[in-house]
Amino acid sequence: MKILGIDHIAIAVSDLDKAIENFKRILGVDPIKIEEVPEEKVRIAIFKIGDVQIELLQGTSEDSTVRKFIEKRGEGLHHIALRVENIGKALEELKAKGFQLIYEEPRIVAGERKISFVHPKSIHGVLLELVERIEH
Amino acid sequence: MKILGIDHIAIAVSDLDKAIENFKRILGVDPIKIEEVPEEKVRIAIFKIGDVQIELLQGTSEDSTVRKFIEKRGEGLHHIALRVENIGKALEELKAKGFQLIYEEPRIVAGERKISFVHPKSIHGVLLELVERIEH
Repeated sequence: MKILGIDHIAIAVSDLDKAIENFKRILGVDPIKIEEVPEEKVRIAIFKIGDVQIELLQGTSEDSTVRKFIEKRGEGLHHIALRVENIGKALEELKAKGFQLIYEEPRIVAGERKISFVHPKSIHGVLLELVERIEH
Repeated sequence: MKILGIDHIAIAVSDLDKAIENFKRILGVDPIKIEEVPEEKVRIAIFKIGDVQIELLQGTSEDSTVRKFIEKRGEGLHHIALRVENIGKALEELKAKGFQLIYEEPRIVAGERKISFVHPKSIHGVLLELVERIEH
């Protein structure tokens, strides 16, 4: 599969507004976007550092995986994402190699990216997202 | 402070050789370097994805922080690092802003980089390394 780069690093936070203020003070820039992604039950603030995005995630419902993550482990690094050229091919290849995928078919998120995840059990505890950005 | 980019993403693993094999199968490339860093009590394998390094860390002694991390939380994402232009200035600035630093003076590692960390308590559970690469 063709990897185009690290797409983003995601951090689970309990209070998005407070986290935005703290990360602004370290990164010295404003988030480029704040969005709600109902499909994933999160609100996201996105900072851009070079080509890589830092995404702060806050769960928006009791059963969101981000809230469950924080209940179990506290705030902190949640997942990383690789940007791939073709997510369909990437998922096929990873499945054939025996990696466990969270969605076997890519999900379309916010109309602009197709995503899936390699299960942390398959890859040393890392929740690894794959992203294909849809060109408009 | 001037941030030059994301320097690396570090992943704590229990068996470095096994982890190298698994990450090779996903990333499709060999590590660019495998090194032992006695100052940090780790063995590291470094993969390069664009300008960002993915570092796999294995603790080399009972009291290494990486081993303690794994005992407590299992394998997984351990820290991320920002590459800064001048780490001295960066640490001064962060300290003045009230962030808790792990080393107030930068440590020199492997003769090629100066590092310190913002304590996870200060920044939403994220162990945030700062790195200045020393030009030779």
